[in-house]
Amino acid sequence: MSVNRSTVTLVEAPRGLAGVVVADTEIGDVRGREGFYHYRQYSAVDLARTRSFEDVWHLLVHGELPDTARSAAFAAETAALRRLPDEVAAALPAIAAVGRDSGPLAGMRTALSLLGAARGFRPVYDIDAERRRADTVVAAAAVPTLLAALYRLGRGLDPVEPREDLSYAANYLYMVTGRVPDGRRARAVEQYLISTIDHGFNASTFTARVIASTGADVAACLVGAVGALSGPLHGGAPSRALDTLDAIGTPDRIDPWIRERVLAGERIMGFGHAVYRTEDPRSRMLREVARSFGGPRVEFAVEVERRVEAILAELKPGRELHTNVEFYAGVVMELCGLPREMFTPTFAAARVVGWSANILEQARDSKIIRPVARYVGPEAPVAVPVPPGV
Amino acid sequence: MSVNRSTVTLVEAPRGLAGVVVADTEIGDVRGREGFYHYRQYSAVDLARTRSFEDVWHLLVHGELPDTARSAAFAAETAALRRLPDEVAAALPAIAAVGRDSGPLAGMRTALSLLGAARGFRPVYDIDAERRRADTVVAAAAVPTLLAALYRLGRGLDPVEPREDLSYAANYLYMVTGRVPDGRRARAVEQYLISTIDHGFNASTFTARVIASTGADVAACLVGAVGALSGPLHGGAPSRALDTLDAIGTPDRIDPWIRERVLAGERIMGFGHAVYRTEDPRSRMLREVARSFGGPRVEFAVEVERRVEAILAELKPGRELHTNVEFYAGVVMELCGLPREMFTPTFAAARVVGWSANILEQARDSKIIRPVARYVGPEAPVAVPVPPGV
Repeated sequence: MSVNRSTVTLVEAPRGLAGVVVADTEIGDVRGREGFYHYRQYSAVDLARTRSFEDVWHLLVHGELPDTARSAAFAAETAALRRLPDEVAAALPAIAAVGRDSGPLAGMRTALSLLGAARGFRPVYDIDAERRRADTVVAAAAVPTLLAALYRLGRGLDPVEPREDLSYAANYLYMVTGRVPDGRRARAVEQYLISTIDHGFNASTFTARVIASTGADVAACLVGAVGALSGPLHGGAPSRALDTLDAIGTPDRIDPWIRERVLAGERIMGFGHAVYRTEDPRSRMLREVARSFGGPRVEFAVEVERRVEAILAELKPGRELHTNVEFYAGVVMELCGLPREMFTPTFAAARVVGWSANILEQARDSKIIRPVARYVGPEAPVAVPVPPGV
Repeated sequence: MSVNRSTVTLVEAPRGLAGVVVADTEIGDVRGREGFYHYRQYSAVDLARTRSFEDVWHLLVHGELPDTARSAAFAAETAALRRLPDEVAAALPAIAAVGRDSGPLAGMRTALSLLGAARGFRPVYDIDAERRRADTVVAAAAVPTLLAALYRLGRGLDPVEPREDLSYAANYLYMVTGRVPDGRRARAVEQYLISTIDHGFNASTFTARVIASTGADVAACLVGAVGALSGPLHGGAPSRALDTLDAIGTPDRIDPWIRERVLAGERIMGFGHAVYRTEDPRSRMLREVARSFGGPRVEFAVEVERRVEAILAELKPGRELHTNVEFYAGVVMELCGLPREMFTPTFAAARVVGWSANILEQARDSKIIRPVARYVGPEAPVAVPVPPGV
């Protein structure tokens, strides 16, 4: 159960494994200097501009974009998987009733765990590649239904049954709001969802792969990834950038509000990214989407972006600080009628597809991921003190 | 959300991160050549021989063995936490009703996730060290209750309410079987539980630490660890060794049965360990415990061990192949009345305490664990094919 230290040479790793190559992947990559990222061999932003969520989902888990016939078949296949097993649907009120303090991903974690058991998921090393893929598709298809139902139950509303005649994105908005969205809103959310399916090797993706490397079932992997995504250091909370817009309030307050915070050393939510040294390509695309809606909220967001970039360039010269994906993601989701507490769950729903591709790729390897720790405590053993009377 | 590759040097790591030091720890260590492992500065086996489960739990999460007064206080504190919140208890029948195919840990995963939300667990980076520790204690105290209830519900039996006047181990056996165990059986299970709390840096422990490094709540970390533990490559299935005893059946069949399998290149479950080059200290202790019960089953196990070691020494000279923890763990749990399907969950219950210590240690660090993947797919980008009609 541990690494054989008698024969394995210990390797010093940078803190947090930063820069340590743990896997070869064909799923995609992020090129920070170029402001570019891709899924398989395609620009992710180009995919978001031209294809459906279902097509990109197919690309991620099947490895290729579907042709027209296959596209329709995969859309129909996944639409039919939206309805929850009765026993899962029956448990959702109990899941929704607890844990408001633990955030909206805690319910997703529990419901996804239950769904995996209800669907009879088995260890990935005990099933063939087709069954593994099918399990990931079952999970990813049901996630929007779980999320929308938990949201509505938490507000005392009845869940809305999924519709098979709507796209993934339109059906998701329909289940959350109870109204069929117009085509423009459904497409805007769809483009956001596509753009956030995968983005390099973050902690949740790594968690999914570590669990998959033990051979555990797809639900075990996804539930672990949801847990990692719920951590404050993971990132992925588009609501925070919107909170910044709200806090600033009006255009005249932009300058003093931003300057005060930058000079106090605070981070401005929605700006800056660990990888991109130029504009975040997701931000550029989502700005376009937001602008196509227009209106005072979008104009205000664009003005905040313009002013913040100028102030950051003045106060932090030489740093390339631009809006990140969270900034316009929040604006777009708000325009499309998603409530703020559903922003992170919506992100998680898209990411389930990225995690799925990573689980499937990891499951083709047979090597458990298991680093070592170095004992740095007091010398052992010392005699155990035995309390009198034992 | 990804490592900054513009400034971080990429490091080639051995496959599966074997031998890569990912953390400094004061929790314990395994010394494979010596056949020795320890918790903090004490021999784990000596702790199992002389202390209660609650005392060792205190050692792991508080960092020191309790004195007599503190020992009684911690035992009382944890006993009071055994009862489940009403909303969790109410959801258990639904959780027990699904997922028999997904194994006994799938229900634990769901129930533990729900418990964390019901208890209002919050991100470890948003709460102080005392609250973090309290959350781990809440979880570990409730796990035996969850496991016993899921087991009984799965058999159409009513759950047995926990009793505060029994030790952790005795109460666990009581809740599973419905009968208060005799002191010898309660103590035997307690010694097994203590011996399996922690054992180096396995994949489940690593998973718990990766999730904790994002700042996620204690339940998110534990649920991920349970998922990793459920993987077939993780190890920790004492029932398999018992299956071997059953398959052999009678002493006269030991030699032909074992020879046939060893010559066919099969692994004999219950024998061999990745770290220990000498006898597994857990195996030695549990053999003693089993022998103190005596009886034909124990005599048969000892005879199988003796014959298998002789045959392995003959057929695989130079390899040090001895019984591992699974071999006598299964024998001991069977002697104490635990059903075979509860062996792995029982192991998991003890391991929750080890994971807790690791989560608390990781949460004191503020660095996310996030390695990188190397893209090895086809060159990108190529133009996205747009189907006709889009």
